[in-house]
Amino acid sequence: RVNGERLWESLMEMAKIGPGIAGGNNRQTLTDADAEGRRLFQSWCEAAGMTMAVDRMGNMFMRLEGADPYADPVHIGSHLDTQPTGGRFDGVLGVLAGLEVVRSIRDMGVTPRRPIVVVNWTNEEGARFAPAMLASGVFAGMHDEGYANSRTDAEGKRFGDELDRIGWRGDQPVGGRPIHAMFEYHIEQGPILEAEGREIGVVTHGQGLWWLEVTLTGKDAHTGSTPMAMRVNAGLGMARIIEAVHRIAMDHQPDAVGAVGQANVWPNSRNVIPGKAVFTIDFRSPDLGKLTSMRARLETEAAQIAADLGLGISIEPVGHFDPVTFDPGLVEVVRGAAERLGYAHMDIVSGAGHDACWINRVAPTVMIMCPCVDGLSHNEAEEISPEWAAAGCDVLLNAVLDVAGV
Amino acid sequence: RVNGERLWESLMEMAKIGPGIAGGNNRQTLTDADAEGRRLFQSWCEAAGMTMAVDRMGNMFMRLEGADPYADPVHIGSHLDTQPTGGRFDGVLGVLAGLEVVRSIRDMGVTPRRPIVVVNWTNEEGARFAPAMLASGVFAGMHDEGYANSRTDAEGKRFGDELDRIGWRGDQPVGGRPIHAMFEYHIEQGPILEAEGREIGVVTHGQGLWWLEVTLTGKDAHTGSTPMAMRVNAGLGMARIIEAVHRIAMDHQPDAVGAVGQANVWPNSRNVIPGKAVFTIDFRSPDLGKLTSMRARLETEAAQIAADLGLGISIEPVGHFDPVTFDPGLVEVVRGAAERLGYAHMDIVSGAGHDACWINRVAPTVMIMCPCVDGLSHNEAEEISPEWAAAGCDVLLNAVLDVAGV
Ligand SMILES: NC(=O)NCCC(=O)O
Ligand SMILES: NC(=O)NCCC(=O)O
Repeated sequence: RVNGERLWESLMEMAKIGPGIAGGNNRQTLTDADAEGRRLFQSWCEAAGMTMAVDRMGNMFMRLEGADPYADPVHIGSHLDTQPTGGRFDGVLGVLAGLEVVRSIRDMGVTPRRPIVVVNWTNEEGARFAPAMLASGVFAGMHDEGYANSRTDAEGKRFGDELDRIGWRGDQPVGGRPIHAMFEYHIEQGPILEAEGREIGVVTHGQGLWWLEVTLTGKDAHTGSTPMAMRVNAGLGMARIIEAVHRIAMDHQPDAVGAVGQANVWPNSRNVIPGKAVFTIDFRSPDLGKLTSMRARLETEAAQIAADLGLGISIEPVGHFDPVTFDPGLVEVVRGAAERLGYAHMDIVSGAGHDACWINRVAPTVMIMCPCVDGLSHNEAEEISPEWAAAGCDVLLNAVLDVAGV
Repeated sequence: RVNGERLWESLMEMAKIGPGIAGGNNRQTLTDADAEGRRLFQSWCEAAGMTMAVDRMGNMFMRLEGADPYADPVHIGSHLDTQPTGGRFDGVLGVLAGLEVVRSIRDMGVTPRRPIVVVNWTNEEGARFAPAMLASGVFAGMHDEGYANSRTDAEGKRFGDELDRIGWRGDQPVGGRPIHAMFEYHIEQGPILEAEGREIGVVTHGQGLWWLEVTLTGKDAHTGSTPMAMRVNAGLGMARIIEAVHRIAMDHQPDAVGAVGQANVWPNSRNVIPGKAVFTIDFRSPDLGKLTSMRARLETEAAQIAADLGLGISIEPVGHFDPVTFDPGLVEVVRGAAERLGYAHMDIVSGAGHDACWINRVAPTVMIMCPCVDGLSHNEAEEISPEWAAAGCDVLLNAVLDVAGV
């Protein structure tokens, strides 16, 4: 078993860097706080006998040498960056649990056969530079480096320039590193494990996703003096499409979700009928057929809604990944470890996107989840218990040792 | 008939003060531009032989003496302030048409029996300091002066302080001035007159209004990892209420309108189910029964929608006035003048609120409307033709002389 207290102390120590305004963190990617967090993590790893390699995307690979230095290493990775109003555990838990696994292995006085590499993937959140999971996506060959370097934040600063500025662009090529297996341990970010009273989620699949940005064009006009029959109301069209998104997701139950997260109307004035609406749809499912069907039905229904109201419509895909099936062998290893350790566990599908979803395309990958209070995440009030944190880390340690060999 | 060219030139001259960014105007109330516009108007009026009185709300009363100085004066009034991205005619037309009436009377070399007073009402738009029609509302006893002085703009500046700052607080008490009749000439701000091919709208009624601000409280959660059954989606509730507003207005046809103009969700992020929605409903009807019924039905249906989704709901009225029936005698005078002059006219209901709606509570009042291109208003692209402007001004001149006597 790992040292749960040491893990918790490290989590609390890291949370001091880039503090938020309400108990959480604002340690967004490629900020000075990110650089400081990276240095702290590096110093801890080096104190635990690990050596560092950094690639041209700033991904940090902290290596504990194995008994067989030529064996493909076992990787444990997640991210240290946070949302602008993020929690203390989203991502950070997975990275520091990797460190705790190494510390525990050294406490045990054993040397695993395979090297262990703990990874901090750059810009998982995508809050400052869209899209999310950017650097693991480059690693997996989903994006190219030029694309990543050219992404800009709200102030127009480029990802590549900011990576150089904070001094964390490494010399290693991105991708192509041998990975025997990769584990990502993450908080659930949803309410299922807590509701079901389980300490461990064995993540078998990751949902696929379509993000669609809809623009409706009507005619802004005075709400008082424009008769109902003469209106071209983009806000009404938006309302009908929000309802359609919900109905379509419900019609694809189980294993499908859908909602509109961003919703804006123009000119957004009390006495003006909205002439324009822009909003984003988030459809997800672990089932590719359902995911494709939801998007297709939405496109048909939205076009009809727009036509009925005389609105112009455009629908632009702004994010996509296919559903992920994590490596069945590794899933079995995680489930077995949880079972052996006596933790209440259940199979679960990751609702959110994670670095593991990209790495799964180039190496056998699996995820472990722990509950989070009320399912709350992407919120400074995000909370987990030290016991939950330690339970998942125990499972991680055991699964890693199973795969790395002793 | 009036001098249409002179009227148009004055409109274009006034439009130079507080220019917008797209051919319209930003001459918001109690700004330096407002003060400059007032001074220009004052100088034109004084050149036309009028004398000025200003009340403690900054309402400007420009008086042409009558043959009988003790007779209650005929008033012609509207407003010189504009929306932040306003047109060149909304309000301004009514004030400068009043001036043109006086100029034409002097050209004719006659002296009406009753004095003629052209009024510029302060802060009709309500864009900078809510509510709209603020100073005419104080004049009519609907608000008190302390309330008006304490209204703040987005920067926290007080109405009273800004009125003092621009130097336009007068010494006259607000309200209680004798008014034999008040005329307001205004662009329609809607599409009906243009669609029907009429130059003149004889305004028989003004719609009543309920503005309701709805706040829905749900729970923001990750769009990917929160199952459909565990969501408390404030954005979905907003969508259903937007649809309900539309359905309720349609069920009250004819003579009723309803729409949601302002719509905001929080945190307004692509992958977060909205935990909060705040939006405003604008219901209007010239029929008090319908207006009351629309509000009541909305409250019932919205409560049900919120209950179905598990949302908290509060509905706050943020604006209200009852429907207005303009003075039947004055309506007849306006209709007769249009008829006599051979202008295509029709009876119309004012869809928007106007200073005339408040003044109608304390004196016989009527409005005249001219078409505006595409019904567009509260928009820098607001447009009317010089012929339309002159036609309504001709009707105004004739109606005023009918009532003032020569
Ligand atoms: N874990 C996480 O929230 N990633 C961001 C992308 C997503 O919305 O799934
Ligand atoms: N005329 C005008 O637009 N007044 C503002 C208040 C309203 O929305 O009716």
